Amino acid sequence: MGSVTVYGPPISTAVSRVLACLLEKDVDFKLVNVDMAKGQHKSPDYLKLQPFGQVPAFQDEHATLFESRAICRYICDKYANRGNQSLFGRNGGGPAERAQVEQWLEAESQSFNPPSSALVFQLAFAPRMGLAQDPAAIELNQAKLAKVLDVYERRLGESRFLAGDEFALADLAHLPNAHYICAAGKDDMFASRKNVARWWEEISTRPSWKKVVDMFSAPPA
Amino acid sequence: MGSVTVYGPPISTAVSRVLACLLEKDVDFKLVNVDMAKGQHKSPDYLKLQPFGQVPAFQDEHATLFESRAICRYICDKYANRGNQSLFGRNGGGPAERAQVEQWLEAESQSFNPPSSALVFQLAFAPRMGLAQDPAAIELNQAKLAKVLDVYERRLGESRFLAGDEFALADLAHLPNAHYICAAGKDDMFASRKNVARWWEEISTRPSWKKVVDMFSAPPA
Repeated sequence: MGSVTVYGPPISTAVSRVLACLLEKDVDFKLVNVDMAKGQHKSPDYLKLQPFGQVPAFQDEHATLFESRAICRYICDKYANRGNQSLFGRNGGGPAERAQVEQWLEAESQSFNPPSSALVFQLAFAPRMGLAQDPAAIELNQAKLAKVLDVYERRLGESRFLAGDEFALADLAHLPNAHYICAAGKDDMFASRKNVARWWEEISTRPSWKKVVDMFSAPPA
Repeated sequence: MGSVTVYGPPISTAVSRVLACLLEKDVDFKLVNVDMAKGQHKSPDYLKLQPFGQVPAFQDEHATLFESRAICRYICDKYANRGNQSLFGRNGGGPAERAQVEQWLEAESQSFNPPSSALVFQLAFAPRMGLAQDPAAIELNQAKLAKVLDVYERRLGESRFLAGDEFALADLAHLPNAHYICAAGKDDMFASRKNVARWWEEISTRPSWKKVVDMFSAPPA
């Protein structure tokens, strides 16, 4: 297997989504830091990898890619026979089984991500950046996220994971934002919903995710 | 081939994205209207198809699905041998080629869609719903969308379509929002950028998209 490189700081939610996927798939990788405080994500060389000036970027011998969810899909397709082989459904799944994963991955992207990303910024990153928190934005996005979690609560009452009986890419994609929201003291949003609480406990204690948390909790080398 | 049903009004951008994909793939379908003005998208029966109470929902003999981009991926995978067979790259593509489509489909979803959806609401739907437009929201989202289109302009200077030489799902996904923005008199955002203008002219005049426009321009039956 050729070399795989991920560009970006593991503290970024989008970077850590890709790292969780690589660890699930047991694919070795090299992590190259991008110092966003120094504006390295807007440098001409980096913009060749990621034209929007965002993290992560990804490279292996066949592809240079951006967008965390697209990178995760590629890792699952390209390294189909390594590590966890159920991330698109049991045994890789057929079109209908993959589509179940895709629809909940899109629910994450379209419904869960907007309010949860806003909360992660307000609760976790604004304080680190010395920015004032916006209480109205916190309240608004907590209310939006609560409605999404109410749908998840019903779904997870009939299914162990979002897309079915197996931990899949749809579940994995939620880990970064949910982690920061819980770590910032809003874990009650997850713990107060019985099925969401069971699901969150199960997915957040996977060895792959615990390794990612160790990576972004470690002081920079 | 069994029957395919799409639930939702074709005037919805997300519904029309799915219709464009079905027409490209030459897959017959039945369209069942969901009268959102009457709240049918929040009825218990509809929520069984689409738990978030949004449109579209999709059914064929193998799957019941929601989320327009997930439905489009499924249509391409399931009906791989029908109609346009390059929507995931030439001849269906391998993982690296599919990933090029996926990364630009994610750019649409994460970068293009948020400001363009806000503009579609302000410019096209608020007036129809008798709601006041918010000039500050229009200005803010036009500025955000301009930055995204600047990245597209550079990309489309080196590539005929976003993901490569073929019209793909990544291009198709842009059609609904871009259509409404242009129809509302903001076509200069596309026309003023040389490569974006060429791309938009090429994708918006495809027979499949012209049929969709006819569907949502027709008076309701």
